[in-house]
Amino acid sequence: MNVSVAGLGLIGGSLALALKTRHRVTGFDIDVSTRDAALAAGIDVVGALDALLPADAVIVATPIAAIVPTLEALASRAGTAVLLDVASVRAPVEAFAASAPAGCRIVGLHPMAGRSGSGFGAASAELLELRPFLVVPTARSDTAAMALAGVLARDAGGEVTVCSAAQHDRIVAVLSALPLALASALAITGSETVDGNLAAFSGPGFGDSTRLALTSPELGSALLLANAPNVRTALEGVRAILAELDRAIATGDVAALKELLSRAAEARRRLV
Amino acid sequence: MNVSVAGLGLIGGSLALALKTRHRVTGFDIDVSTRDAALAAGIDVVGALDALLPADAVIVATPIAAIVPTLEALASRAGTAVLLDVASVRAPVEAFAASAPAGCRIVGLHPMAGRSGSGFGAASAELLELRPFLVVPTARSDTAAMALAGVLARDAGGEVTVCSAAQHDRIVAVLSALPLALASALAITGSETVDGNLAAFSGPGFGDSTRLALTSPELGSALLLANAPNVRTALEGVRAILAELDRAIATGDVAALKELLSRAAEARRRLV
Repeated sequence: MNVSVAGLGLIGGSLALALKTRHRVTGFDIDVSTRDAALAAGIDVVGALDALLPADAVIVATPIAAIVPTLEALASRAGTAVLLDVASVRAPVEAFAASAPAGCRIVGLHPMAGRSGSGFGAASAELLELRPFLVVPTARSDTAAMALAGVLARDAGGEVTVCSAAQHDRIVAVLSALPLALASALAITGSETVDGNLAAFSGPGFGDSTRLALTSPELGSALLLANAPNVRTALEGVRAILAELDRAIATGDVAALKELLSRAAEARRRLV
Repeated sequence: MNVSVAGLGLIGGSLALALKTRHRVTGFDIDVSTRDAALAAGIDVVGALDALLPADAVIVATPIAAIVPTLEALASRAGTAVLLDVASVRAPVEAFAASAPAGCRIVGLHPMAGRSGSGFGAASAELLELRPFLVVPTARSDTAAMALAGVLARDAGGEVTVCSAAQHDRIVAVLSALPLALASALAITGSETVDGNLAAFSGPGFGDSTRLALTSPELGSALLLANAPNVRTALEGVRAILAELDRAIATGDVAALKELLSRAAEARRRLV
């Protein structure tokens, strides 16, 4: 297939690198040095978003705030090209798709992958290997477009899971946004409690538990704000459990504490 | 040196295995099958706590609730043996040491190491390699006993950091207890939000963020309760930051959100 990628950062760059062994991939990024880096890595690049068309598929992998504007710019001229987007919050795309030009086709294709680095320099095909790819239909999806999304997800090395936009956003609030919020709160509390470096004291647990605090503030705030209702519900859940834990500690209630920790261990075993 | 180890679980077993290449190590555990496993792994074992003496050092590595009773049983008959204990909360040992028999010597030796497994079966010398060992003086420490603790920590593969009991307990509340509390709250919230298995959806972040929820409820509740005042202060800090995050999300305050996430990223970079 002819596959175009708009936005060659960590995710878009990784998709372009992963797909180019099986497809003719063309990329675009608004940043010239990113385009040069992609070209040096063997990806065909073009100098304007428009030049990504015609294609069989265009994957929109810009920063989250630019995804709907980019889909909007492409939708009226997409022709038979299927528009895919990697938005990690589906509600805004779902709202756009509902009023997008009749005949255009839009499908969400969200790879659950990441690392603390960002940009094309951190991209690699391996990032996507065996990762879950959430394929999310919109009001402008059809069977052929869904099938095409599945093929590209598998060709990029991923494993396909189909879910609705509402289900997607509820799940990522718990899987991505909440761990980010907790890692951030933990890192700040750590720095308020301990002067200077913790490395002399810390086991592996603290490092793992705070790794997501390294997420860029731009990406992090977008994740939290774009999915605000679900994130607030998830935060409310966590805060209620922390209040329960605190109550059990304050009253020395060993039984209640063990019961909470057992529930948590059982949940972890079941979920992961 | 003649080094005895009381309690051959994950930490005691790992210490015995790590120290036996340079020292004559004798171990005791109240569990017969643990003693048999240690014997099979090449550790000399005895059938009673008393038989660990005489020695140059006795390391008490029982579950946390048994540490002070075990020190008490040994203190009056320790002679010149230095008593070391791996308690991950120092306040109870500090209180005991202050009224321990004159002439006995007690030093805290807390390796910041762990894994989700437990018992001698999960023990290994590698667990301790390059880990921080917190050496904590008590009212019954002297220079020679502190030096001996340092030698054993290094011989076990660790890196020595000396700190006071108060400093130790404040730090482990943030480094160990708080990550455990947050991982547990996250795992429970996850299971309340998502039916069934999350594996089809989850990137590496959720798994890392909830790993500590696998801590055994016995160890976990001991960690939280024995250090209650510091843990509650740390929990209060985290809950205040979560409230701030929630407020910023509720009001769509991008600037406040980015500022919090930047502080967190900066703290993580500085601390780990």
